[in-house]
Amino acid sequence: MTIDEPDKLRVLGWQSGDPLLPRKAFVIGLLDNQSHLVTIDLESGRVETHEISSGSGYPMLTMEDVAAAVDAAVSYPGLEVSAAARGLSVANLSCISPSPGWFGPEEEGKRLLKVLCYSKQGTPNFYMRPLEGLVMTVDVDRREVIKFSDTGRGIPIPGGANTDYRFHPGNDPPEMNPINPISMEQPQGPSFTVTDGHLVEWANWEFHLKADQRAGFIVSRVVVRDSETGDRRSVMYKGFPSELFVPYMDVDEAWYFKSYMDAGEFGMGATAMPLVPLNDCPRNAHYMDGVFVSADGRPFIQPNMICLFERYAGDSAWRHTELTVSAELREARAKVTLVARMASSVGNYDYTIDWEFQTDGLIKITVALSGMLMVKATVHDNMNQIENQEETGPMVSENVIGVVHDHFITFHLDMDVDGPNNTFVKVNLVKEENLEGKTPRKSYLKPVRHVAKTEEDARVKLSLYNPSEFHVVNPSRRSRLGNPSGYKVVPEANAASLLDHSDPPQLRSAFTNNQIWVTPYNRSEQWAGGLLTYQSHGDDTLDVWSHRNREIEDKDVVLWYTLGFHHVPCQEDFPIMPTVAASFQLKPVNFFDRNPILRAHPVFEKDLPVCRPSESASAM
Amino acid sequence: MTIDEPDKLRVLGWQSGDPLLPRKAFVIGLLDNQSHLVTIDLESGRVETHEISSGSGYPMLTMEDVAAAVDAAVSYPGLEVSAAARGLSVANLSCISPSPGWFGPEEEGKRLLKVLCYSKQGTPNFYMRPLEGLVMTVDVDRREVIKFSDTGRGIPIPGGANTDYRFHPGNDPPEMNPINPISMEQPQGPSFTVTDGHLVEWANWEFHLKADQRAGFIVSRVVVRDSETGDRRSVMYKGFPSELFVPYMDVDEAWYFKSYMDAGEFGMGATAMPLVPLNDCPRNAHYMDGVFVSADGRPFIQPNMICLFERYAGDSAWRHTELTVSAELREARAKVTLVARMASSVGNYDYTIDWEFQTDGLIKITVALSGMLMVKATVHDNMNQIENQEETGPMVSENVIGVVHDHFITFHLDMDVDGPNNTFVKVNLVKEENLEGKTPRKSYLKPVRHVAKTEEDARVKLSLYNPSEFHVVNPSRRSRLGNPSGYKVVPEANAASLLDHSDPPQLRSAFTNNQIWVTPYNRSEQWAGGLLTYQSHGDDTLDVWSHRNREIEDKDVVLWYTLGFHHVPCQEDFPIMPTVAASFQLKPVNFFDRNPILRAHPVFEKDLPVCRPSESASAM
Repeated sequence: MTIDEPDKLRVLGWQSGDPLLPRKAFVIGLLDNQSHLVTIDLESGRVETHEISSGSGYPMLTMEDVAAAVDAAVSYPGLEVSAAARGLSVANLSCISPSPGWFGPEEEGKRLLKVLCYSKQGTPNFYMRPLEGLVMTVDVDRREVIKFSDTGRGIPIPGGANTDYRFHPGNDPPEMNPINPISMEQPQGPSFTVTDGHLVEWANWEFHLKADQRAGFIVSRVVVRDSETGDRRSVMYKGFPSELFVPYMDVDEAWYFKSYMDAGEFGMGATAMPLVPLNDCPRNAHYMDGVFVSADGRPFIQPNMICLFERYAGDSAWRHTELTVSAELREARAKVTLVARMASSVGNYDYTIDWEFQTDGLIKITVALSGMLMVKATVHDNMNQIENQEETGPMVSENVIGVVHDHFITFHLDMDVDGPNNTFVKVNLVKEENLEGKTPRKSYLKPVRHVAKTEEDARVKLSLYNPSEFHVVNPSRRSRLGNPSGYKVVPEANAASLLDHSDPPQLRSAFTNNQIWVTPYNRSEQWAGGLLTYQSHGDDTLDVWSHRNREIEDKDVVLWYTLGFHHVPCQEDFPIMPTVAASFQLKPVNFFDRNPILRAHPVFEKDLPVCRPSESASAM
Repeated sequence: MTIDEPDKLRVLGWQSGDPLLPRKAFVIGLLDNQSHLVTIDLESGRVETHEISSGSGYPMLTMEDVAAAVDAAVSYPGLEVSAAARGLSVANLSCISPSPGWFGPEEEGKRLLKVLCYSKQGTPNFYMRPLEGLVMTVDVDRREVIKFSDTGRGIPIPGGANTDYRFHPGNDPPEMNPINPISMEQPQGPSFTVTDGHLVEWANWEFHLKADQRAGFIVSRVVVRDSETGDRRSVMYKGFPSELFVPYMDVDEAWYFKSYMDAGEFGMGATAMPLVPLNDCPRNAHYMDGVFVSADGRPFIQPNMICLFERYAGDSAWRHTELTVSAELREARAKVTLVARMASSVGNYDYTIDWEFQTDGLIKITVALSGMLMVKATVHDNMNQIENQEETGPMVSENVIGVVHDHFITFHLDMDVDGPNNTFVKVNLVKEENLEGKTPRKSYLKPVRHVAKTEEDARVKLSLYNPSEFHVVNPSRRSRLGNPSGYKVVPEANAASLLDHSDPPQLRSAFTNNQIWVTPYNRSEQWAGGLLTYQSHGDDTLDVWSHRNREIEDKDVVLWYTLGFHHVPCQEDFPIMPTVAASFQLKPVNFFDRNPILRAHPVFEKDLPVCRPSESASAM
C-alpha cells in the first residue's frame, strides 16, 4: 500500500493555502494468485479503480511471505536428513529465502521462494557457513516444499573461524594503532530545517524527502535558489532507485537463479534498519523515520531509517592562487554539502544510498556496498587444488568461494529543469581531422550537439572512446547568453551487464541493457523492472517501454541512469567486506548565469568551534 | 637540480644504523643551447658523470625564463600598437607565457615561449579579458620576439564584469543562506607522526613524503602493517604524477600550440603556492614546506606546500545490520583516512592532488581541477549569433568562449608488492555462453586470469564492455589459501585522448595512448613525456619505452595510470570554476588474509570532543 500520487500537473499547480488535493491510496493485493491493483479515495473510503493485472509478476514479498517460506522449509523432513549428514540438526541452521528469478513456464502460476540454509554454530555470521548444494523450492502460498535438492553432501561446511564481526566491549583486543578521536562538529546545530517531517531546506536547496518501502527513499520537488535572482527554480520532480539487478555468475542448480531485483522483490525500504549513530552517520546527523505498511495493512514505524547531515570533508569548492607583480592572490572556499542517507540490508548485502547536495548546484548520488558476500562452499581449501580456474570465483577462506557477481542500481530521475518540458541533448565530442595546411595541428575534438527526438536516440551505452556529455535542457529557458538551461548526468565509475539479452535474468532486468535512457513521463512507468517484479517475465521493463520509441523532444521526460559494479571477491571481503562505493552526478550546465558560489565567504578561524577532548578520551 | 637517487636495491637494502649511502646531486644544465646531464658526488664535490643530451627537448623552464620572455614581449613595439588599437596601453596588460608545444623543424635549435596578453583593468582575473588573436613568439635565450601575430583587432576584449573572485572583508554582501560553522575536530591532535620532516606514520601505514619541484610531491617507501602479524609489508617504492597533457581543441594561430605538459615544462612543485588554511585544508592539517632550487642553484623554501590531515567525512568503513530470531545485529565502523595534498597553480588552472590512505589498505589518488578557464574572445555576445556551432566551445559570458580541452595526468607507480618482483595480471571477465541443457541460464561471466609476459600485454585501453581487473601481484608471496599477494589499480571516472597519434601534441604525449601501461623498472624512465619535455619531439616517451616490448613477468615493474578529463566549459565555470575531481584507487587484492579492519572499534559518544560555538559565531 502506498500513496496514489495526484496527477503531476495538479501537484505542480498546487500552492500553499490551496485546498489539499484528494488523498488516495494505491493498494496492490494478492488474492487467489491474482494481483489486484486498487485505488481508494481516502476521504470517501471508496474504491475508485480496480484492475486485475494481466501481465506477469507478483507484488513485492512481505516479511510474512519470507517467514512462511522459511517455516515450510525448516519443517521439511528432508532437511533434517541433510543436516544430519553434515553433523548438524535443524536447530543449528539459519535459513534464508532468496527470490527464484523466473526461468520458464513450469514456474508459472505459483509464488516461489528458494530456501538456503547455513550453519549458525559458533558465529552470528552464518552466511560464511553454507550447506552447499542444498536448495529447497517452496510454494509460498501452499507453504510447501515442492522441490528439494541436495547435491553437496560431500562438500564441507566452512569452519567459520574469525567470522564474528560484532564488537565485544571489554573482550576485543585494543586496536593496533588507534586513531585519536575525530569528529565533524557543528555546535550551533545544523543549517537545515525539516518542516512537516519531510520538507528539507538548506543553503540554496529545497526538496522533499520521504521513506518508501520499495525504493528506500524518494527525493522530490527538488528546487534550487538562483544565485543571482534568488528565484526558486525547479531541477527535479522526483528521483529514487527504481530497481536493482544482482546476477551471480554461477549456473549450478543451487546458484543459477540468483539474480535479485531487490527493490521490487523485497523492498529497499522494507529491508532498511535503523542507522547506527556515529558509525553509519556522523554526530551532527538528524534522523528520520519511515512509516510503512505490514501485510495486513497496519502501519508501522521503521525508526531512524534516514539520516541527514552536513558534511565538511576538508575539500575546497573552488580555489586559485597566483603570484602577480602587485600581489599574491590566494583564494579558496571550503566545501560543505548536505547528505541524505539510508542503508538497506537485503539479506547478506548492505546498500547505503546517499544523495549529496552541493551549494554549486551539483547533486552527487552514491551507492556504497558492504555486508557479507554470498559464498559457495567447496571441497578445496587451497587454490593449488583448483585446476583450470574451474571455480566461479576466488577462494576467500578455506572451503569458501566468493562467487563473482554484478550489482546494478537503476535510478528514476524525473528531471524538471526549469519546468516539466525538457529535451535530452547528447553533446558528442567528435574528432575533426584533415586540417592540412590550415594549422600545424592534425586533429581536435569538436562538441557536436545532437537532440534526441525519440526514445531510441536516448539509449546510451557509455564508451571511453566515443565520449559525450548528456544534457537535460529546457529549450524554452535561455540564459542571458542564449544557452538553454540544463543539467547533465555525469557518469563516474560504472560497469555494464554483459549477459545475453535472452538470458531470463537479463530479459527481466533489461533496464540494464543501456546505462542511460530517456522516456516521456508516464505516471505508470516508475519501476524499471515492472510494477510487479517478483517472478516477472520481463514484459513490463524500461526496455519494453523505450521500444515504443515515443517522442521525447521538449516533453516532460524521465532520465534513467544505471550504476553498475562487477564484483570479483578477494580475501579482504571476508568475513565482511570493506565499503565499495560508486557515484554519478547531476550537474548544472548553463543553468546558472555564472559560478553560483563565486560570492561564498571563506572560513575564518574565529568562527570555528572551540573544542576540548572528552574526559574519556583524555584518560586514554 | 635534484637528488641523484641511489640504486633502488641499495636503498631497499639499507637499514637504520647502516652508514648513509653516498649523497649525489643530479643537475640538468643548459649551456649554448645544449642540455648537460651531470651527476655530482656531494661528499667529494666532484662531477661523476657528464653527458650532453642527444635527444630532443630542453630542461624545465625556470621562473627566470618566463620573466625574460614576458619582458621581451612587453617591450616589443608592436605590442604597444596592438594595445592602443584596443584602447589600452601596455601598462594595462598582464602577459603570460605558455609553452609552444613543438610543431616541426622550424622550431628547432631555439627555446621558444608564446606570450599572450590580457587586460588587467578592473579585475585581478585578467584571464577573462584576453586580447584575442595576439600572440608573440619569443626566443627565450635571445630575449627577442621572433614572430608577432595579431589577427584579433576586431574582436572586443570581454568586459570583465563580476570576474573578481577575491573576498573583500566588510564589503562583500552577506551570504544568502549562510551555513553554521562546521569543522573536523580532533582536539587530542593528529594520530600521525612526521619524523625527520618526511617519514609519515599513521595507523597501519608508513611512507615518505617529499616535495618535488617537477612532480609536486613524491610518495615513497609505502609500507603497510599486516593486520594479522603486524609485519611491515611493502606496497610501493615510489609514486608521483609523472606528466600532464592538456591539449586545447582549437587550431587557430593563437591556439593550436596549447598542449601543455605542465610537469616537465613548468613543474608541478615549482607552481605550487602555500595552501590556504581552513579553506584548502581543514583545521587539523599539518603543513610541510618544499625545498627547491632556483635557476642559479640556490635553495629556496616553498612554505606550506603540502598539507597532511586525517579525514572523517561521515562515512562507514564497513557495516551490516540484520534482524534474526535471536537478536538485532547492527554493526558499523566509521571511516577515518589520512590525506596528503598539494595544489599547483599552473597559470590559470589549479590542480589539487590528494593521496588518501585508508586503514583497509586502499590508497585513493584524486586530482581536482579548479581555477580559471583559458578563454577565447569572440565578437558574439549571444549564442543566437553563432551558426553551425562554429565556435570551439560554449559561450560562458558575453564575448567569451570556453574552449573545449582535455586534462590528462599520468602517474608513475613503482609498485613493490611484498618486494620488487611483481607480475601484472589482467583478470578478464569473459562471457560464457552455449550452456544449453545444463542450466536454465544462458550466460555468465567468468574471471579469466591473463599474465602479462611483455610490455605489449600490459597496454590497456579501458572498455565498459570488455571489463577486467588489473592486478599487480607478487607470484612468490602466496596467502594461506594460495592466492598471490596483490594490489589492483581500480579506475573510476576517466577520459581518453582521441587526437591523432601523428598529431604533434599527441606524439609528444603518447603516454596517453593507453590508460594503463606496465614497464620494467628502469632508473631513467621516470618522466612519461621524457626527461627533457619542453619542446621535445616525442622521442623519449612511455610509448617509446613500452614498444621495446621488454619482459615484465616476475620482474621489478612500474605501473602507469592516466587519469583524464574532457572539459566542455559552461557558464558555471565563469569566472572561476567549481572544483571537478576524479580518482583512481590502488586496492589490496588477496594481500591481507582477511578484512584488515574487521577488529576496528566502533566510535562511542563518550570519546568524542566536547565543543561549543566560538564567541564570534555565537554573536552572529
